[in-house]
Amino acid sequence: MTTQRYEPIDSGVTPRFAGHSTFMRLPVLTDPRDVDIAIVGVPWDGGTTNRPGPRHGPRQVREMSSLIKRVHSVTKISPYEICRVADLGDAPVNPIDLNRSLEDIRKFFSQIVEAGAVPLAIGGDHLSSLPILRAVAAARPVGMIHFDAHSDTVDSYFGGLKFTHGTPFRRAIEEGLLDPKRVVQIGIRGSTYSADERDWPLQQGIRIISIEEFEEMGIDAVIREARRVAGDAPTYISFDIDALDPVFAPGTGTPEFAGLTSREVNRLLRGLRNLNLVGADVVEVSPPFDPSGGTALAAANIAFEILCLLAESLAKRKS
Amino acid sequence: MTTQRYEPIDSGVTPRFAGHSTFMRLPVLTDPRDVDIAIVGVPWDGGTTNRPGPRHGPRQVREMSSLIKRVHSVTKISPYEICRVADLGDAPVNPIDLNRSLEDIRKFFSQIVEAGAVPLAIGGDHLSSLPILRAVAAARPVGMIHFDAHSDTVDSYFGGLKFTHGTPFRRAIEEGLLDPKRVVQIGIRGSTYSADERDWPLQQGIRIISIEEFEEMGIDAVIREARRVAGDAPTYISFDIDALDPVFAPGTGTPEFAGLTSREVNRLLRGLRNLNLVGADVVEVSPPFDPSGGTALAAANIAFEILCLLAESLAKRKS
Amino acid sequence: MTTQRYEPIDSGVTPRFAGHSTFMRLPVLTDPRDVDIAIVGVPWDGGTTNRPGPRHGPRQVREMSSLIKRVHSVTKISPYEICRVADLGDAPVNPIDLNRSLEDIRKFFSQIVEAGAVPLAIGGDHLSSLPILRAVAAARPVGMIHFDAHSDTVDSYFGGLKFTHGTPFRRAIEEGLLDPKRVVQIGIRGSTYSADERDWPLQQGIRIISIEEFEEMGIDAVIREARRVAGDAPTYISFDIDALDPVFAPGTGTPEFAGLTSREVNRLLRGLRNLNLVGADVVEVSPPFDPSGGTALAAANIAFEILCLLAESLAKRKS
Amino acid sequence: MTTQRYEPIDSGVTPRFAGHSTFMRLPVLTDPRDVDIAIVGVPWDGGTTNRPGPRHGPRQVREMSSLIKRVHSVTKISPYEICRVADLGDAPVNPIDLNRSLEDIRKFFSQIVEAGAVPLAIGGDHLSSLPILRAVAAARPVGMIHFDAHSDTVDSYFGGLKFTHGTPFRRAIEEGLLDPKRVVQIGIRGSTYSADERDWPLQQGIRIISIEEFEEMGIDAVIREARRVAGDAPTYISFDIDALDPVFAPGTGTPEFAGLTSREVNRLLRGLRNLNLVGADVVEVSPPFDPSGGTALAAANIAFEILCLLAESLAKRKS
Amino acid sequence: MTTQRYEPIDSGVTPRFAGHSTFMRLPVLTDPRDVDIAIVGVPWDGGTTNRPGPRHGPRQVREMSSLIKRVHSVTKISPYEICRVADLGDAPVNPIDLNRSLEDIRKFFSQIVEAGAVPLAIGGDHLSSLPILRAVAAARPVGMIHFDAHSDTVDSYFGGLKFTHGTPFRRAIEEGLLDPKRVVQIGIRGSTYSADERDWPLQQGIRIISIEEFEEMGIDAVIREARRVAGDAPTYISFDIDALDPVFAPGTGTPEFAGLTSREVNRLLRGLRNLNLVGADVVEVSPPFDPSGGTALAAANIAFEILCLLAESLAKRKS
Amino acid sequence: MTTQRYEPIDSGVTPRFAGHSTFMRLPVLTDPRDVDIAIVGVPWDGGTTNRPGPRHGPRQVREMSSLIKRVHSVTKISPYEICRVADLGDAPVNPIDLNRSLEDIRKFFSQIVEAGAVPLAIGGDHLSSLPILRAVAAARPVGMIHFDAHSDTVDSYFGGLKFTHGTPFRRAIEEGLLDPKRVVQIGIRGSTYSADERDWPLQQGIRIISIEEFEEMGIDAVIREARRVAGDAPTYISFDIDALDPVFAPGTGTPEFAGLTSREVNRLLRGLRNLNLVGADVVEVSPPFDPSGGTALAAANIAFEILCLLAESLAKRKS
Repeated sequence: MTTQRYEPIDSGVTPRFAGHSTFMRLPVLTDPRDVDIAIVGVPWDGGTTNRPGPRHGPRQVREMSSLIKRVHSVTKISPYEICRVADLGDAPVNPIDLNRSLEDIRKFFSQIVEAGAVPLAIGGDHLSSLPILRAVAAARPVGMIHFDAHSDTVDSYFGGLKFTHGTPFRRAIEEGLLDPKRVVQIGIRGSTYSADERDWPLQQGIRIISIEEFEEMGIDAVIREARRVAGDAPTYISFDIDALDPVFAPGTGTPEFAGLTSREVNRLLRGLRNLNLVGADVVEVSPPFDPSGGTALAAANIAFEILCLLAESLAKRKS
Repeated sequence: MTTQRYEPIDSGVTPRFAGHSTFMRLPVLTDPRDVDIAIVGVPWDGGTTNRPGPRHGPRQVREMSSLIKRVHSVTKISPYEICRVADLGDAPVNPIDLNRSLEDIRKFFSQIVEAGAVPLAIGGDHLSSLPILRAVAAARPVGMIHFDAHSDTVDSYFGGLKFTHGTPFRRAIEEGLLDPKRVVQIGIRGSTYSADERDWPLQQGIRIISIEEFEEMGIDAVIREARRVAGDAPTYISFDIDALDPVFAPGTGTPEFAGLTSREVNRLLRGLRNLNLVGADVVEVSPPFDPSGGTALAAANIAFEILCLLAESLAKRKS
Repeated sequence: MTTQRYEPIDSGVTPRFAGHSTFMRLPVLTDPRDVDIAIVGVPWDGGTTNRPGPRHGPRQVREMSSLIKRVHSVTKISPYEICRVADLGDAPVNPIDLNRSLEDIRKFFSQIVEAGAVPLAIGGDHLSSLPILRAVAAARPVGMIHFDAHSDTVDSYFGGLKFTHGTPFRRAIEEGLLDPKRVVQIGIRGSTYSADERDWPLQQGIRIISIEEFEEMGIDAVIREARRVAGDAPTYISFDIDALDPVFAPGTGTPEFAGLTSREVNRLLRGLRNLNLVGADVVEVSPPFDPSGGTALAAANIAFEILCLLAESLAKRKS
Repeated sequence: MTTQRYEPIDSGVTPRFAGHSTFMRLPVLTDPRDVDIAIVGVPWDGGTTNRPGPRHGPRQVREMSSLIKRVHSVTKISPYEICRVADLGDAPVNPIDLNRSLEDIRKFFSQIVEAGAVPLAIGGDHLSSLPILRAVAAARPVGMIHFDAHSDTVDSYFGGLKFTHGTPFRRAIEEGLLDPKRVVQIGIRGSTYSADERDWPLQQGIRIISIEEFEEMGIDAVIREARRVAGDAPTYISFDIDALDPVFAPGTGTPEFAGLTSREVNRLLRGLRNLNLVGADVVEVSPPFDPSGGTALAAANIAFEILCLLAESLAKRKS
Repeated sequence: MTTQRYEPIDSGVTPRFAGHSTFMRLPVLTDPRDVDIAIVGVPWDGGTTNRPGPRHGPRQVREMSSLIKRVHSVTKISPYEICRVADLGDAPVNPIDLNRSLEDIRKFFSQIVEAGAVPLAIGGDHLSSLPILRAVAAARPVGMIHFDAHSDTVDSYFGGLKFTHGTPFRRAIEEGLLDPKRVVQIGIRGSTYSADERDWPLQQGIRIISIEEFEEMGIDAVIREARRVAGDAPTYISFDIDALDPVFAPGTGTPEFAGLTSREVNRLLRGLRNLNLVGADVVEVSPPFDPSGGTALAAANIAFEILCLLAESLAKRKS
Repeated sequence: MTTQRYEPIDSGVTPRFAGHSTFMRLPVLTDPRDVDIAIVGVPWDGGTTNRPGPRHGPRQVREMSSLIKRVHSVTKISPYEICRVADLGDAPVNPIDLNRSLEDIRKFFSQIVEAGAVPLAIGGDHLSSLPILRAVAAARPVGMIHFDAHSDTVDSYFGGLKFTHGTPFRRAIEEGLLDPKRVVQIGIRGSTYSADERDWPLQQGIRIISIEEFEEMGIDAVIREARRVAGDAPTYISFDIDALDPVFAPGTGTPEFAGLTSREVNRLLRGLRNLNLVGADVVEVSPPFDPSGGTALAAANIAFEILCLLAESLAKRKS
């Protein structure tokens, strides 16, 4: 285990288009004990019920993350100066065998967690969050701040299938990984399968802030509410890129009209400083539906905002 | 004539990418007497003065509408439970002969109106609205809530041509199909041919709410004003997709910088519940300028919002 | 059971961009007993090991098939005049559960075969061919003329998985569905996993005509060889769109440099008249990787060529 | 009337991406008496029965023609050194009024012809050829070497409409503009509306060389046959970009599988030196279906090949 | 020198897709003494450190500007009625030799300035602003209202290189072309190379209004502040298209998440009437990264807004 | 210095879309002494005179090379079994300073050559070949087999500039790096700046096989001629992707109609076994002009074919 810090390649020396493509231009490491925060790809979309493609997400996010610089413009924090951060590669996946993938992904993240590192996962479809939570919340349930157009708490699809990208948080609650009373979902919207679709999550105690309620409350109140729900206990951030309006994130499987804007997302995330963060993911980037990379660029920015949150949170815990 | 209701294909059984592509995954019917609301394509762009393509609009909207679910997330209304709704196919059109198309489209919609059904048309360019209004307003003038970047009340183009997608509502007023004092236009903007371009519609009594006035008034006031103008008498909704900012609807013939956002459109439409609605259209989706389908997805969402309005309005009238 | 023939919508009356999108603009039927040839979509890519998307293939092929007219320009055959042909919809699929999909697809095709109809399937990835063959070859092994860049006779992937789009014909031979001595593969090429990758299929007796041998032999000799291998017994045609060079078919999961040209494909297929054909498929069209639809247009043309072969073959058998 | 020659902008001084976009980077002139060859755009697609867009063709061809240099690499001819060539702008068109456009286009080309200049038109859909022929063949019928996937000699569409892009050469023959016995069509292919679709042109004496016959004859024999049919009398060249295989020209309204290749087209055109050429067109480039510009680049190359033919032919006649 | 005014081609006569592509459909002139405002392209990206392409910007902006009409919808001003405005072509550039380009561009703009005309430049990357300022501010420093995601006041790149698109305004201040106390930058945002990156510009006295401060202040206060900073002295407007959020301007080299919206930009620009404007540019449109032209359409709209500002400012000064 | 061989990641274990993107999925090394063949990116387009973008080439080729497997299908050679091959990263480049880049690239390749390794460079524009040749041919002139649409032996551009992507081989001959009598250029075509453009290279003794001569000779004769010209002495292969027809390689700066096909390229390269190869490059892939990656996939295939040639050549020399 080293105490060495890792820096992105210096774009004032090596242009952004040069060199191998890694998350934030960071070095590639393999041992999670060498990092405080492990950025990891989960190139998998085994749970996708409609338009596939998130299996290609990590590579495109790596590519577009070369546009991100080192220092946060508002907080002036450079996560690389206060934590050891690196690209830990991709979790092992299997595009054919869903169950094996769930287990292999979990094992990979368990190694990270057991090494004492905090994972920042880049999906992958939203079912990826389940095995990550199985690793992160192995010891105790966690809270979650969840940005999404959809609640992802459906019971099953296609005649009883329990594991799809529409079900991960139902499973996570059933398995005791999430404390539903400490879960807040922001940006929920869009037509539903049934009029009672949100009854189950509400009954569990999840705080759903639909896009309509978001507009009524205003951002500052939403931030306060999210912080209230999450509290001081260990908390996970899950960011489905379709929380953004489809114009900001066309490259996703289930685009939902009338979502969050880029500036709202930045403000929301910047309102989450100094929580007790234990992991995060950014999921559902589907490159085949946006070869321009705009969606992946949004994801890379969001990942950087979250990285700054994780680093600050972690640096304070460790200090 | 049946009293049977029609349901979209169940996406919990048949995935959204499977099966034939119809509006909202509804069954295809041919007899308008079997429905309360007839969703109809008008694959025609004979009136287009610049970039063509809306003739391909209905197919792409059908395709993208497979992403829409059954129940409105805010009102909890499922239009399919309170009205008989189906895909009635496409109006007959002729890409070469403008006059014949105008007449054939009118006849097709007259059959729908005479059967007692309310049409929801998916265009097609905006000249399509004229023959539809000739059917819908055959008995008496109607009011109109009109979302658009352009007033579409020019007198003529290219040396006296009276029928283009820039003239439909001038014709409709001249023909007594629209009561201009009950017409409100929302989202009007962009450079104009002349400084007096909006004089004629204003003189007729049309209430133009430019994007600038929209911003000053605020959405709630705009909704109140639109409801005031339309009143309780029969009203038509016409939604030109270019009312949206071009980033939300790049696939259109006359994109106009600085338009409405997706969330504003949703709020505006949701403010129009329980009017006396007798028909509607969503027009100017031009797939060749947006093969990604994002524009058509926006149109499908807007069509669903309007469908909910029509169904609720109709259910109340019939009850 | 009817004796009625079905015609595509008349494009001299209804323009090609109008009306619902069905295979070859044919009517949609549900009972296979009403047709001699059933065109069927298989919107499924559960076996895809790399770039996904063929689940969206049937819809895009339907759309692009609206460009195909009724009569073959060389043979002057109109398949619709000599056989009853219709669009029988999509086979039931499940994007999450591979095994259930294999079984549901098989059942669907078994109904077609048992009704006495010949299936022409539009995929879907190449694993789709396996359940189709289980239906078509239920009674006895069949021969196969197989166009592809890859032999698709790998044993397993990702640690022993037996069912992927790289393995269908190994399984089909093991299950006795294909008579390997009556199988010819045309267009095989590209780098391989190992030097002995083609040993197994060659040992079974499959006749592999690589693109290099194709060039040396010339088309006429290849046609003679394919006919010799297939012989007079029941024969299936399987056409993986990646048999074409990637410039003709960029929308596919495993594009392989230096393949067949469009004109070669036409000549090859036209050399297969009057075989004893019992079914066919065209697979691996992946719309997300070619939103322009060029790949699907190629597939639609190939499907029409095969449809003419099937119709002629069937008409002769029935006469 | 000047005797001045015009040169393209020197790309060794002004880079190809700089400066206004004109055909071949030539100067823009307005008086046809100043040129021997007038390159003219016809931004019109009023005759298009399916996918629109050729109205945008001239601009995109102008843009891509900036890649063409001055001298033919094989013949070493520079057309600009032996003839006065310039960009004469666009013919007047009307996207709404078909008949007026036909007349306005004819008048524009009549002025060119009457000034003694030879027109090289860049379309526009194929109906554009009719008014051009009315100008070019006003004095006597001409022969034609016609590259196309389709014969374009249909009688009528959509219930008797005589003027579409599928009918121009039937009209031209009826009007005595074309001598059908001096017309050769190369590259004809694709499914047909009826088995007797080619009877009428054949009965008139048109020599149709289908793509299949092209392959059998070989290029050299096709060139000989085309020259034999055209003979020494005044001849027009009409090049529909869909003569090319769709991979070379995806941006067109009616792409037809299995067409000519780029190298075949170059060889064919280079076989037509020293005919008695009186005009030419390159049509059916539809930019909305190929924003990359590849189709327009092909058209620009073909236009340059034809320009060299026209210049050489004209220089000899004048000398 | 003429007193003649120039009008855009009348789109009620010649459709927007017809004719040569010039800025705002204006005539092309060569002598700056004939105009009051010279719209000029700068097809150059020699200073680009990452994604290239702005060399292609002027042509695409010309093309998309054909969608702009003559009269400002809010102010009812037609710039063409109060000033002589034309397309003066492109500045001479050299894609290989940076220093020569800087000098050639400066000379070109010096001729315009010396002729008494005001330049409106369409770039080109942001380094283009430096030689323009050398011309415009030759006699005295100017103030600047600068819209951008980036301050562009870095000292050097890649080991001491002083001239890149990240450095122009540092050079301009050092050279005394800009009075930093009269410079305001609006829309600045995004991660930075270092925590002190904005120290230098702030020390010079530049007023930086980051996107975060913009949100806090509100548009009206930002306009007041910008007007206060610029004052009554000669002022230049520089608009980097990446000031817009990437969804409005994906076609640019350094897209920066969470920027200005189209409506905000319109409101900001309309707040700048009757300043003492001496020149302007709109830069960093990179067509290869947005072949759809949406970014160029945004730039054309912004250029028209600025043109109206320049014309009104100039007309008042001259009156 | 190791004797260890390096293998691509096993795609039967880790799917092709997973893991970091490197050339051929090989490990990344930094010391050229550890390899026999160094695959290196040159992300630089400083010499580009028209459409830029090859600076982004290496990353896209790395990405698409994940589709290439280990073993050559015809020769059954796996280069990784007979040589040590790895991804040595990118040469240092500078997008602003041409001269420094030329020197930095040279130094980087000199280290490779001095370590005894053979470089396979992935460009980058064609000027990249010059500094590579300065390294590879430092000790003595080399021969070259050069695939290209253009001779790239122009003297200068834009008023005397000696270093552009149109001049590298003139410079290389002048500097004594190439023995022009051992240089053969294949695929040369397209319009030229002047009638005598090819005089200089021919006078030097370069053997130019234009596309027209290629067609006349036939591939086998071309191969014989290329081998005759190159002889047994040290030889370099330079492959400009625009040697391919634009349909196979649209993503390039100077697409030239009517080029080589994919199958011809494969046959040509396979005809070059067992030459005395000392280095190679594949250049001019410009991702912004082909975001689909088809061009890069072609380049990856060509690179693999050349890699097999290098490995076989090297293994024989070493044995």
